[in-house]
Amino acid sequence: MIVVMKPEATKEEISAVTSKLKALGFKTHPIYGEVKTVIGAIGDKRILKETALATMPGVEALVPIMKPYKLAGRELKKDKTIIDVNGVLIGGKEIVVIAGPCSVESRTITIKTAVEVKKSGAKILRGGAFKPRTSPYSFQGLEEEGLKILSEARDITGLPYITEVMDTRDVELVSQYSDMLQLGARNMQNFRLLKEVGETKKPVMLKRNFSCTIEEWLMAAEYIMDGGNHDIILCERGIRTFETATRNTIDLTTIPIIHENSHLPVFIDPSHSTGLWRYVPELCKGAVAMGADGLMVEVHPDPSNALSDGNQSLRPEKFNEMMEFLKPLAELTGRSI
Amino acid sequence: MIVVMKPEATKEEISAVTSKLKALGFKTHPIYGEVKTVIGAIGDKRILKETALATMPGVEALVPIMKPYKLAGRELKKDKTIIDVNGVLIGGKEIVVIAGPCSVESRTITIKTAVEVKKSGAKILRGGAFKPRTSPYSFQGLEEEGLKILSEARDITGLPYITEVMDTRDVELVSQYSDMLQLGARNMQNFRLLKEVGETKKPVMLKRNFSCTIEEWLMAAEYIMDGGNHDIILCERGIRTFETATRNTIDLTTIPIIHENSHLPVFIDPSHSTGLWRYVPELCKGAVAMGADGLMVEVHPDPSNALSDGNQSLRPEKFNEMMEFLKPLAELTGRSI
Amino acid sequence: MIVVMKPEATKEEISAVTSKLKALGFKTHPIYGEVKTVIGAIGDKRILKETALATMPGVEALVPIMKPYKLAGRELKKDKTIIDVNGVLIGGKEIVVIAGPCSVESRTITIKTAVEVKKSGAKILRGGAFKPRTSPYSFQGLEEEGLKILSEARDITGLPYITEVMDTRDVELVSQYSDMLQLGARNMQNFRLLKEVGETKKPVMLKRNFSCTIEEWLMAAEYIMDGGNHDIILCERGIRTFETATRNTIDLTTIPIIHENSHLPVFIDPSHSTGLWRYVPELCKGAVAMGADGLMVEVHPDPSNALSDGNQSLRPEKFNEMMEFLKPLAELTGRSI
Amino acid sequence: MIVVMKPEATKEEISAVTSKLKALGFKTHPIYGEVKTVIGAIGDKRILKETALATMPGVEALVPIMKPYKLAGRELKKDKTIIDVNGVLIGGKEIVVIAGPCSVESRTITIKTAVEVKKSGAKILRGGAFKPRTSPYSFQGLEEEGLKILSEARDITGLPYITEVMDTRDVELVSQYSDMLQLGARNMQNFRLLKEVGETKKPVMLKRNFSCTIEEWLMAAEYIMDGGNHDIILCERGIRTFETATRNTIDLTTIPIIHENSHLPVFIDPSHSTGLWRYVPELCKGAVAMGADGLMVEVHPDPSNALSDGNQSLRPEKFNEMMEFLKPLAELTGRSI
Repeated sequence: MIVVMKPEATKEEISAVTSKLKALGFKTHPIYGEVKTVIGAIGDKRILKETALATMPGVEALVPIMKPYKLAGRELKKDKTIIDVNGVLIGGKEIVVIAGPCSVESRTITIKTAVEVKKSGAKILRGGAFKPRTSPYSFQGLEEEGLKILSEARDITGLPYITEVMDTRDVELVSQYSDMLQLGARNMQNFRLLKEVGETKKPVMLKRNFSCTIEEWLMAAEYIMDGGNHDIILCERGIRTFETATRNTIDLTTIPIIHENSHLPVFIDPSHSTGLWRYVPELCKGAVAMGADGLMVEVHPDPSNALSDGNQSLRPEKFNEMMEFLKPLAELTGRSI
Repeated sequence: MIVVMKPEATKEEISAVTSKLKALGFKTHPIYGEVKTVIGAIGDKRILKETALATMPGVEALVPIMKPYKLAGRELKKDKTIIDVNGVLIGGKEIVVIAGPCSVESRTITIKTAVEVKKSGAKILRGGAFKPRTSPYSFQGLEEEGLKILSEARDITGLPYITEVMDTRDVELVSQYSDMLQLGARNMQNFRLLKEVGETKKPVMLKRNFSCTIEEWLMAAEYIMDGGNHDIILCERGIRTFETATRNTIDLTTIPIIHENSHLPVFIDPSHSTGLWRYVPELCKGAVAMGADGLMVEVHPDPSNALSDGNQSLRPEKFNEMMEFLKPLAELTGRSI
Repeated sequence: MIVVMKPEATKEEISAVTSKLKALGFKTHPIYGEVKTVIGAIGDKRILKETALATMPGVEALVPIMKPYKLAGRELKKDKTIIDVNGVLIGGKEIVVIAGPCSVESRTITIKTAVEVKKSGAKILRGGAFKPRTSPYSFQGLEEEGLKILSEARDITGLPYITEVMDTRDVELVSQYSDMLQLGARNMQNFRLLKEVGETKKPVMLKRNFSCTIEEWLMAAEYIMDGGNHDIILCERGIRTFETATRNTIDLTTIPIIHENSHLPVFIDPSHSTGLWRYVPELCKGAVAMGADGLMVEVHPDPSNALSDGNQSLRPEKFNEMMEFLKPLAELTGRSI
Repeated sequence: MIVVMKPEATKEEISAVTSKLKALGFKTHPIYGEVKTVIGAIGDKRILKETALATMPGVEALVPIMKPYKLAGRELKKDKTIIDVNGVLIGGKEIVVIAGPCSVESRTITIKTAVEVKKSGAKILRGGAFKPRTSPYSFQGLEEEGLKILSEARDITGLPYITEVMDTRDVELVSQYSDMLQLGARNMQNFRLLKEVGETKKPVMLKRNFSCTIEEWLMAAEYIMDGGNHDIILCERGIRTFETATRNTIDLTTIPIIHENSHLPVFIDPSHSTGLWRYVPELCKGAVAMGADGLMVEVHPDPSNALSDGNQSLRPEKFNEMMEFLKPLAELTGRSI
């Protein structure tokens, strides 16, 4: 960490900061510039109550040098993490496609969709039993009944499934049924939920909050990992910006950035990021070309009658067509779908 | 609601949309322009699964005409809501100042701060017992022990207090102790928590999420109100933008916008929005001049040693000085502090 | 256009708005809802001083139905525009790669780079003679001397070139030398410059401003086209958001969005959007997979000694390696490089 | 400046960076941490081509310690700048209100407005003769004819006036007529125009671009000052964010931030930031309470028939009412209007 002192900082102030750093176990290296003094401090920033330092007289700013995350970062673990979801390996050579309806509406639709997406090459089924809805007047999900339907779909198709958990009280229940937990964008900084999920043994897909930085996202992964669960898959779904042509703005450069800074696999969710099914196939092509470890795509046999997010769901035949395009594309990048 | 059809929409497509709207109980009014047809639809949008409509062939866009919130809006309730927090009236003539430390660290500091802020004119005490922290390595709060300390500070000073609740499992416990619940910015769209809090009888301060629009914020209030609890105070604390000079960007115009669109009281939190104590007094002046119903300010007797957010906390003497300035300012606007 | 009246609008107010619309030549269609009245207005919004209407008593909002751009849009011109830059066709089956140094620093470096990028498959040379620099203390470009060097590089390699014009006073000079004009992101809404460039016969690459919407970008193209010059190539280079991992956030979904709404070709500039050369190849792969009509890439033989933007420039060998990957990828999408 | 080396940087790489820094005239101070090495470098960053350094092998990041602006900053000039606009002092004890129509539409309206705003206490007249319009189909301004009308209004009322200059070719003309030049938000980084204006002797109001940081804004001021013109007034008018309730998001905290970092006076433009006249008075109250040196407000006698921005213009009687409120408010802050 570097402590930057104000131009008008006195000798006494500089010396007080140095003493405090030493008392906290840091080694200090002051550098006296013409206008400002900066103090290099070597030690574990995590033990430092950094706010204390920033309010000391004469301090202008603190500049961190080390990344705030350890477990999620590449610095301590060079090899890429591979996660086994009931036999499906995520993070390896195969690009894993997760597909299914936004929410579990009925047994028939869910099973029908599961059979279709499997046929096209999806390896994991998705479907929401508990739904976060911005309006209290919208469909809220079938809850446990939905989990049972998903389990039946798994029995029929052999596809493991992922479903969202929204409440600390539901973690145990959802873990009993599902193969993989989803933490939604709005819960990325629900720290209690992160902690609870960190105590399970289920792989967790952690979606990026639409207004959090990549660094904050990796810190949220760190939260779960700190609880003991290291099977985290990151899923980018766009951030909120001033542009209104799509629901969110999704920067696929996140893929190489994550690969550079973390060993965790990274997925792209083209359905929520755009909010419009007609851009989904193009975005999937981009994601595969840029090295994503997987895709999470909404598919519904009858989007016009979907109870949620019909606008962003592909029909099975469109999904199939897209998958056919993605296969040679994946090969070109040295991977497979 | 207005349904805008694509330029190339066929007669049959227009007629299919009209039929669907009628089947859903809407009255329809098509308008045929030179390039596009639009269909006015009168009825309760809430019963409409709008996504279904948007995916019908020929539909370009749906344009809502009515606001999505009802209970939180001015349209059905013209009079401003006044909320009684253990004898302190919020939303009336008095501008209510809530003050205290970011988190409850110890009995001594909490009580000392409570006594000081009361002397300066604060009417409600604040302090976090459960803390949402972005790093798993930071201080997480004293939990129930913290609630007991706050209750003791209330006994001594007579100030009611507000404290944050972060987990559905804690709502009952926190409600038993505190006078008012705080929903933090990161939980503004934690829908399960909104629902749980909607079932209590405690006044709720709902902070705006740093990346949610004013409309989404009012929808979150609607969620709580829909559960039966109408005692909501809105608290603006800034949004996330590209500017890095302060932690967040806070637009005080939110104050008149809320007064125009909602009957609920609106507060400003200058401490979290700027993240820097030295801008807090100026921002409070602005907020009072612009008609805020209250302020929520962090005060700590020894910010350099605070366990959280010391950087944004005012010392008691600075807080007192600011309060002295705010009193005549409030009077100038026809109110009091 | 739809005029939404306030819930409390009186009959007289509604009738005054209707009369005004009729006086302006619009056909009006009022729809009376339970709470609000809306008035459909058919006619040419461009002749309407819309601000006047919005301030009439009782008016809540104006909702445009037609896109504000005509010439740049797909509604009037269905076929994609193909632009001939001295024999290189942009917007057709070939994906055109423009490459070269950020700024023209010297004859040697410019010619060397031109030869290298041609060898790898670039079809147009780029290089800045006039440089927009955020600091007055940075290198400002060689100006006319730079244009002469670029022309020499063209003579040697046969590559046409593009260079930026920043000032209305330079349009004539730059047009005399170069094959194609670049309007930089910061000048996208420099309306005088748009007008001036609209009066030339040179193809124009219009970069998207980092804080303008896609609609505003197409309106800027409209400005140029309105002046008589229809040879516009759009170039996306990312927008400004809260994320700091890269210089800007670039949403490749812009590619299909532009193809849907405009007949103009669209390019991607991976160098300026990320600001970091190591992400450039990945972003180019994504852009090609998603249907970009071209790429504009910075290449410099010795980035560590570049006078500007060395950080984002590829070395010729990296550029060549990337081009080799892009060729089969382009083929997979039915195009060529 | 601090150079942060990558964890895997070799001894040779560290030594190469150190040598390069020394060759450039910097004094270097390496600090060896457990994971990373950082190198403190003392010298004039402006002579350093920093991009060169960032691409050297082993370099992770460069962290600037000094502010990039000198002339506009507080570090070299402690006293606040006071600017004399034809007898009106800006930056002193008086809060200066600039008012008038968005654009000069006609002699009658301009003079009428000038007389009215003077009566209410405005000290400078505003009015656009050259208009930047986002649509080529909107009113573009009366140009020189407009300047003549403004001059006549000045003769009649004695108010000096400010008007926008958009094109390097117009700087001389506009300077001959007006008392003060306005650089619009969209031209804040039109570097050629900044340079041209820097060569005049006229006070310049530099509006903040809606997507530039405060630091970039001060760098734009630096550009003008570097040309020799030190009479700069900064004017904040909001930034672009995801919130759509107002046109832009304006953070009044900018006022104390500018006062802390610069000696230049700072104004607030409530009309363009909100785009809605009904929020203008509240925003002016906030700005005065928070220490703005002045306000720039749009006033029009008949907003419903204004040729531009009628929606954001106050009627003279509303303006007068607001001014009456602001006078005691200014006094409370130790100033006057």
